[in-house]
Amino acid sequence: MRKRIDLNCDMGESFGLYSYGADAEIIPHISSANIACGFHAGDPSVMRKTVRLALDHGVAIGAHVGFSDLRGFGRRLFGVCPSDLKDDVAYQIGALAAFARAAGASLHHVKPHGALYMMAIEERKLSRAMVEAALEFDEDLMIYAIRGSETDHEATRLGLRVVPEFFADRGYHSSGKVKMFDWKISEAGGLPQAIGKRVVRLLREGSVASIEGEDVSVQAETVCVHSDTPGSSRIAQAIRQALHRAGFEIKKP
Amino acid sequence: MRKRIDLNCDMGESFGLYSYGADAEIIPHISSANIACGFHAGDPSVMRKTVRLALDHGVAIGAHVGFSDLRGFGRRLFGVCPSDLKDDVAYQIGALAAFARAAGASLHHVKPHGALYMMAIEERKLSRAMVEAALEFDEDLMIYAIRGSETDHEATRLGLRVVPEFFADRGYHSSGKVKMFDWKISEAGGLPQAIGKRVVRLLREGSVASIEGEDVSVQAETVCVHSDTPGSSRIAQAIRQALHRAGFEIKKP
Amino acid sequence: MRKRIDLNCDMGESFGLYSYGADAEIIPHISSANIACGFHAGDPSVMRKTVRLALDHGVAIGAHVGFSDLRGFGRRLFGVCPSDLKDDVAYQIGALAAFARAAGASLHHVKPHGALYMMAIEERKLSRAMVEAALEFDEDLMIYAIRGSETDHEATRLGLRVVPEFFADRGYHSSGKVKMFDWKISEAGGLPQAIGKRVVRLLREGSVASIEGEDVSVQAETVCVHSDTPGSSRIAQAIRQALHRAGFEIKKP
Amino acid sequence: MRKRIDLNCDMGESFGLYSYGADAEIIPHISSANIACGFHAGDPSVMRKTVRLALDHGVAIGAHVGFSDLRGFGRRLFGVCPSDLKDDVAYQIGALAAFARAAGASLHHVKPHGALYMMAIEERKLSRAMVEAALEFDEDLMIYAIRGSETDHEATRLGLRVVPEFFADRGYHSSGKVKMFDWKISEAGGLPQAIGKRVVRLLREGSVASIEGEDVSVQAETVCVHSDTPGSSRIAQAIRQALHRAGFEIKKP
Repeated sequence: MRKRIDLNCDMGESFGLYSYGADAEIIPHISSANIACGFHAGDPSVMRKTVRLALDHGVAIGAHVGFSDLRGFGRRLFGVCPSDLKDDVAYQIGALAAFARAAGASLHHVKPHGALYMMAIEERKLSRAMVEAALEFDEDLMIYAIRGSETDHEATRLGLRVVPEFFADRGYHSSGKVKMFDWKISEAGGLPQAIGKRVVRLLREGSVASIEGEDVSVQAETVCVHSDTPGSSRIAQAIRQALHRAGFEIKKP
Repeated sequence: MRKRIDLNCDMGESFGLYSYGADAEIIPHISSANIACGFHAGDPSVMRKTVRLALDHGVAIGAHVGFSDLRGFGRRLFGVCPSDLKDDVAYQIGALAAFARAAGASLHHVKPHGALYMMAIEERKLSRAMVEAALEFDEDLMIYAIRGSETDHEATRLGLRVVPEFFADRGYHSSGKVKMFDWKISEAGGLPQAIGKRVVRLLREGSVASIEGEDVSVQAETVCVHSDTPGSSRIAQAIRQALHRAGFEIKKP
Repeated sequence: MRKRIDLNCDMGESFGLYSYGADAEIIPHISSANIACGFHAGDPSVMRKTVRLALDHGVAIGAHVGFSDLRGFGRRLFGVCPSDLKDDVAYQIGALAAFARAAGASLHHVKPHGALYMMAIEERKLSRAMVEAALEFDEDLMIYAIRGSETDHEATRLGLRVVPEFFADRGYHSSGKVKMFDWKISEAGGLPQAIGKRVVRLLREGSVASIEGEDVSVQAETVCVHSDTPGSSRIAQAIRQALHRAGFEIKKP
Repeated sequence: MRKRIDLNCDMGESFGLYSYGADAEIIPHISSANIACGFHAGDPSVMRKTVRLALDHGVAIGAHVGFSDLRGFGRRLFGVCPSDLKDDVAYQIGALAAFARAAGASLHHVKPHGALYMMAIEERKLSRAMVEAALEFDEDLMIYAIRGSETDHEATRLGLRVVPEFFADRGYHSSGKVKMFDWKISEAGGLPQAIGKRVVRLLREGSVASIEGEDVSVQAETVCVHSDTPGSSRIAQAIRQALHRAGFEIKKP
C-alpha cells in the first residue's frame, strides 16, 4: 500500500493590479491550496479565479485566514481580541466558501496565515477562536497546524480534525520551532533537490536536520511550500518528484 | 383573509467603535433586515451581533451589499465593472451567510445599498452581475428592487424572485423616481403618522402623492424604512400600527 | 505671577458619516487639540474642519498619530517595525500640516494615540521612530509624553521638546502606570468636580491618589481629557473652572 | 539655444510587499517623477524611498494624487464631491511633502492619476477642487494637464502654472482625446524607437498621427511615459536618446 501525503501551498495572494506568487506554475504539483480571503491579501476577483484554478487541477480548497493588514501582508503581530478574531475568521471562511459553492465545490480546510499562525501556536484563546469559527461553519472542516501547538490542542479538544504540517521551505530550530520570517533557504536544504530529499526523509524517519545541526522530530500529514519563496515552483516540483520516486502518493487529507 | 406586507430596514451599519442607526429600537417593528456586509458599512463583529438581533426578533436576514467605500458610506458612484461587482457581491453574501449559518439560519434576500441600488436601477449589466451572484449562491434567495427597474427585469429574466419595494421615508417624483439622497422628510409625508397613512394608502390604492403633488403608481410587497432617517424608530412604529389597524399582517415575503 | 497649564484633548476622530466625540462642546475649554490624521480615525474632511475649529478657538494644533487600524480605533497592539512607523508618522504629520498651512497656521505638537502611545512608553525604538519623524519635519515641534517614559527619554536625547502629560480622566496605579483601557471614571475621581480638584491638587502638589489608594507622583505641563469619556465636555469645563479658581492660566505650552 | 523638454513618469506605485513598475530602470531617463501618495497606490515607506530615488537622480518631485481605491488602482470612476476631493488632494500633497521636506527638498508639481485625471479633464468642479488644494499648499506648485482641458482652464484662471502634457505611450484620437485605458502600444508608435521619433516630431511640429491616421495638434512642455507600460524603461530610454539627438535638453519645467 502506498503512503499518502498532502502537499499544500498558499495561493491567491495577488490584489487588484498587484500580482504575487507563482500560482499557475505551482498548482500542478500540489494537492491542497490555502486561498487568501481578502484580509492579509487577495480580493474577491482573485479569490474566484484561484478557486477555479484549484478545482481545474483537482486541488482541495482551504481558507487561508489572516489579519486585516494588507500593507503588512498579515505578517505583523496584531492585538486582535479572541472574540473579534472569531468573527474575522468566520467572515473570511464564509466569503471564500461562496466562491467554492458557486463552482459546485466546498471548503476542505482552514489554515491561518503569517502572524496569526505564529501567534495562535502559543496563544490558546486565539486558537480557540479560530477553531470555533471553523466548527460553527462546518464540523467537517480540517485545520492545518503544527503538532503540539496550542492550535493543535484546541482543535483536538473541540473536535476539529487537525492535519499536522511540515514547512518544506523553512528551517527548524532544535527546539522544534519553525523559523518563519527572515529565514534562509539554506536552512531548509538549499537546492530544490535537497529540499525534496529532506521531505522524503522526514516522512520516512519523522525527523529533519535543524538549523543548529541536530535532528528534530516533526509530525506531518501535509507539507507546505510557500508560493513566494524564490524558486517556489521548482521546489514544489522537486518535492513532488522526490515523493513519487519514494513511493508516496500526493493527495489531499 | 388578511393581506400581508413586509417591512424592511437597513441594519448593522455600525463599524468598530462607530455607532450608527437605531437598530435595537427598530427591530421589534420590522419583518426583514438588510444587514451591511463590511463593504459600505458594518464589520464582522457587527454582522454577528445584527444577525443575532434579527433572529431573536424573528426577522428575516438579507445581505445589504454595497460598494467598498466606508468613507462615503457606499453612497458615491463607483465605476466597478460588472465582473468585479459580481465577485464583490458574492463575497459579501458569503460572509454574511457564515454568520447566519453559525446561528442556525440562512439568508433570505439580497438588497443593494445606496449608490449601487441607484446605479443598478438603470444599468442592466450591474443588475445582472448582482443577480448572478445571488443565484450562484442560492436559487431561493429573493432580491428587493423597484418594480420596472433594470434590477427587476434582470432578476425576473434570470429566475431570481423579486420583491417590489416602496420607500416609506423618501419622496417620489411624478416620474416614479425615488429621491434617495438630499431628501426632505416632508416629501415622504412628514410626521410618522402621516407616513403610516401614506403606506396604508399605497398598499390599498397602489399610489402615493409625488413631490410634485400628483399621484404616482408604485407596486410594493415590501416597505423600506431607513434606520438613519431622523425618528426612524417612531416612523417604523407608526407604520406598523397603521398597518395593523388597516388589517395588514407584517410578515417577511 | 500666574502659573500656566495646558489642557489638551483628542479631536477629529469622526470618519465619513460616523460621528465621534464632543469636539464642539469641548473646544472652548481647552488650549491644545490632538487631531486624528486618518490612520486610527479621522478623514481629510474631518481634519480640515477640526483644524478650522481649533483655530477659531485659539487652540494649538497637534498631530494625533496612530496605527492604521480604523476598525480597532488604534487601540490594538500592532507589530509595526520602527522604520515603517517612522514613515507612517511622517505621513500623518505631513497630511495634517497641509490643513494647518492652508489655514495659515502650523503644527504645534505631536501626540501618539492609543496603542501606539502605550507601546512607545516601553519600546525605545518605537519612540525613537516617532521622535525622528517629528524632528525631520520641524525641529520646533513638541511631543506630549509621560515623564520618565521611553518616549520622554528618546525625545530629550534627540532634542525634541517634551511636554509631560497627566491624564485627568484615567486612573493611575501606584507604580505610576496609567490605566488607559477598561478604566472606570471613579478611578479618576468620579464626578467632574472631583476630577477638577484632582487636577488642581496634582499641579500644586505633584501627586494624585492612585487606584490602590496611595499617593503617586506625576509631572505635568499638560492635562489630557479624552473627548469620548462619558461627560467629557462637563469634565473639561469643571477642570477649566477649578484651574481658574486656583489661579492657573490655561494656555498652550 | 537648446530647446528644453520635461520627461515625466508615474512612480512609487508599489504597496507593502507588492512591487509595481520599473522605477529604478526608468529614473535615469526622466526629469520629473509623479509619486503616488497612498490613495490609489503607494504607502508611506514606498513614498520615502521614491522621494529618495528621485532626489538621487536630480529628478523633480510631484504629488501623483488619486482616488482612494487601491483595489482599482485609482482607475475606476468615483463620485467624490468637489469638497471631499479638495480635502483628499490636500491630504495627499501634505503627506508627500513631508517626505520631500525630510530629504531637504520640496514639491515641484501635482499630477492627478487615472480616473481622476480623466474626470477632471471634463468636470470643471473637480479641476477647481484640485487646483485650490494645490494653491493653498504652495502657490509656486505647477500642475501637469492636457492643454485645453477643464484642468488647464481652471488652473490658468486661478493662477496655478500649467505644464501642458503629451502622453508618449498612448494613442490620440483625431478629436485630440487620449485613449488612456485599453490602449494598444501600436497606437502610440509601437517600438520604442518609433515612439521616440513620434515625440521628436510632436515637439518640432506640434502634432502627432492619430489612431484614425490624421494629424492632431498637441501642445506639450512635458512628455509622459507610464512606468507600467510594457517595456517602459526602453521606451523612456529611446525617447531620451531621440530627444538628445534632436538637440533637446531634458529638464524639469
